[in-house]
Amino acid sequence: MRIAHLGPRGTYTEVAALAWRPDAELLPVPSVQAAIDAVIAGEADAAVCAMENSIEGTASIETLDLLAREDFPLLVCGEVVVAIQHMLVGAPGTDPATATEVHSHPSALLQCRQSVARLAPSAKPVAALSTSGAIEAAMHAPGTLAIGNERSAELYGATIFARDIGDERGNQTRFVALSREATTPTGDDKTSLAFTTQHDRPGSLVEVLGLFAGRGLNLSRIESRPTRRQLGTYVFFVDVHGHRDDPLLAEAIAEAGTIAHWLRVLGSYPRWAVEG
Amino acid sequence: MRIAHLGPRGTYTEVAALAWRPDAELLPVPSVQAAIDAVIAGEADAAVCAMENSIEGTASIETLDLLAREDFPLLVCGEVVVAIQHMLVGAPGTDPATATEVHSHPSALLQCRQSVARLAPSAKPVAALSTSGAIEAAMHAPGTLAIGNERSAELYGATIFARDIGDERGNQTRFVALSREATTPTGDDKTSLAFTTQHDRPGSLVEVLGLFAGRGLNLSRIESRPTRRQLGTYVFFVDVHGHRDDPLLAEAIAEAGTIAHWLRVLGSYPRWAVEG
Repeated sequence: MRIAHLGPRGTYTEVAALAWRPDAELLPVPSVQAAIDAVIAGEADAAVCAMENSIEGTASIETLDLLAREDFPLLVCGEVVVAIQHMLVGAPGTDPATATEVHSHPSALLQCRQSVARLAPSAKPVAALSTSGAIEAAMHAPGTLAIGNERSAELYGATIFARDIGDERGNQTRFVALSREATTPTGDDKTSLAFTTQHDRPGSLVEVLGLFAGRGLNLSRIESRPTRRQLGTYVFFVDVHGHRDDPLLAEAIAEAGTIAHWLRVLGSYPRWAVEG
Repeated sequence: MRIAHLGPRGTYTEVAALAWRPDAELLPVPSVQAAIDAVIAGEADAAVCAMENSIEGTASIETLDLLAREDFPLLVCGEVVVAIQHMLVGAPGTDPATATEVHSHPSALLQCRQSVARLAPSAKPVAALSTSGAIEAAMHAPGTLAIGNERSAELYGATIFARDIGDERGNQTRFVALSREATTPTGDDKTSLAFTTQHDRPGSLVEVLGLFAGRGLNLSRIESRPTRRQLGTYVFFVDVHGHRDDPLLAEAIAEAGTIAHWLRVLGSYPRWAVEG
């Protein structure tokens, strides 16, 4: 299986792609749109994209906005949740206590500010386009450090000086896999939906959600995003336990379609076990 | 009024602070936590923080996680929505067509990829810690460009070569102002709530939302975030039209408190007009 993902090599998106399909052939591309285009063109079987709490830029918002398009041609066929564990790394032999710079994506630098002040007090933050780009930069600049993940440290032969240095522990990022084909039920699935409601009907969101809750179908995520077309209107993204082919869920979705202004099933896929 | 905000000067957070209180004295600080600490310590009257779709890192997620803490001592006292309009800028006399580098925060570089390829085809992307840091860097490196906002272009005396160059137009970011004191009703307010529901009661989210919808109170935003304490449990962030002192809303909140596992009113504040 060939997976397109936001590159370069060694990003958290690559970590997610390999967590989802350890044997996959990877195709790093410069944007989420490019990953989706690769699947549409048949150059990749799936695209793995950040859905929330992305460490590297606004990929998650890009993903949501693409999924909400009425003519979006792919389906969510999988999910994967990876722990964001930042490592303090550098060329072998570097001494963190005297290092002059610490390279990383600005988000990672913000997330590790207190740890870096403690572990590498003389190191000035330097921005990189990605955490793996940061490690590459540090490997070429003696006496400097980088913040990145374990995989990119391995890729670049960097030494790990401190593990899991985020000031807040327990950060996880959820990614989805997008493909051209629908999945079949596995018995432990989730289904992602997007819908809009009428601006002037405050009750319709609750009505739609009630169709799922009333059938005992667990909602595991809900998010509203303003639409760009009209102020005051929202797209709601909802994940519900079950497969779209399960009779109860199929019934709820059909009814929801009659209440929502617009509704699209983004896909059904096996639930990632760690999400509980 | 003195406003603490994620710095440096010229960031979109500063733009938001000035859109909210044009006469404010600004106190740029290195993190969202530091902005909040400044208010707690009485060094600032309010902290302005990104709530969604942040262009500069994970500030919005940091804000949500801080607000959800049970002992969080501040209240939301205002909101402000600003348009994210990226400008292609540089030192006066620079020719975009032959520029060799374009500096910016990685998120801004990703968001302007197509425009940059068209306007500055020879420019290689270079990461900066912030969009204003990028402009400062470009001003010191002849023949290079930066992507940033109009305010930071003014601050650094940069020339704007192209306006609003985001590949997707219409991006807006919502910020909140946090202070020690509660507001009084204005007649056009919003109230932000955070609550958790029981893991094994799929219907309780819908029950809580129904208390507002059933009273005709418009929900303008809903977002779920996994709690860090327990897998499979979520904090829901909900914005509802009205002030917590309005009788109908006060009644709904009191009832919601009996259904939710935990509920906190994050604050009531005047609605930002542009949100529709």
